[in-house]
Amino acid sequence: MTTQEVAAKLVEMCSQGKFQEAVAALYSDDIVSMEAGAPPGQSRESKGIAAIKAKGEWWGANHEVHSSAVEGPLVAGSHFAVTFKMDITFKPQSKRFQMEEIAVYKVKGGKIVYEEFFYAMEPGN
Amino acid sequence: MTTQEVAAKLVEMCSQGKFQEAVAALYSDDIVSMEAGAPPGQSRESKGIAAIKAKGEWWGANHEVHSSAVEGPLVAGSHFAVTFKMDITFKPQSKRFQMEEIAVYKVKGGKIVYEEFFYAMEPGN
Repeated sequence: MTTQEVAAKLVEMCSQGKFQEAVAALYSDDIVSMEAGAPPGQSRESKGIAAIKAKGEWWGANHEVHSSAVEGPLVAGSHFAVTFKMDITFKPQSKRFQMEEIAVYKVKGGKIVYEEFFYAMEPGN
Repeated sequence: MTTQEVAAKLVEMCSQGKFQEAVAALYSDDIVSMEAGAPPGQSRESKGIAAIKAKGEWWGANHEVHSSAVEGPLVAGSHFAVTFKMDITFKPQSKRFQMEEIAVYKVKGGKIVYEEFFYAMEPGN
């Protein structure tokens, strides 16, 4: 698949809430995932499909998604970008909040090999 | 200005080829700029408006732009993304090539405080 095709498929699957299915279908075994930030002592970077699947499963188990929207993609060469906007509750704290982020992906050999997320780690703008 | 307003202004100015004017108008003095890669021994990161202006002036002096297009923005909270697609000649080597990249920006206090560029550093996809 081309970058455009991978991007279209990711947007389609995530728009349907099929986040874990998208990882299984579109991600390389050698995926590297970079968060905007990490708790003290932990890394922003996760490597390998097993770590990314585990992160996704933790996320799915700990968040209730009230609504979500995906915008994009913007495609440029081997990379594409989308936005995720979600109204979610972090279940362990019963804390509801709205999250908006930009995600950038790199495609190689028809698979997503890199993803990075951008969102503000502090209030205010 | 909101993130949306800064994003719209950047797209407008870059679409007109006013790259240096966009830096002067929209960038924070404390801008951090991250390239996709750097030559051996050099940093991907540039800090401060003087360094970013110098980088832009070097780029402008060393490239002839045959055509360029800006797509986007995608806006999410404090961040936005656009694409740049350019047909350019690197003048020192008389080498013409096409460049496609995704740029991600962070806005704080109405100014761009961070930019990062994503493009493939190796051939193939």
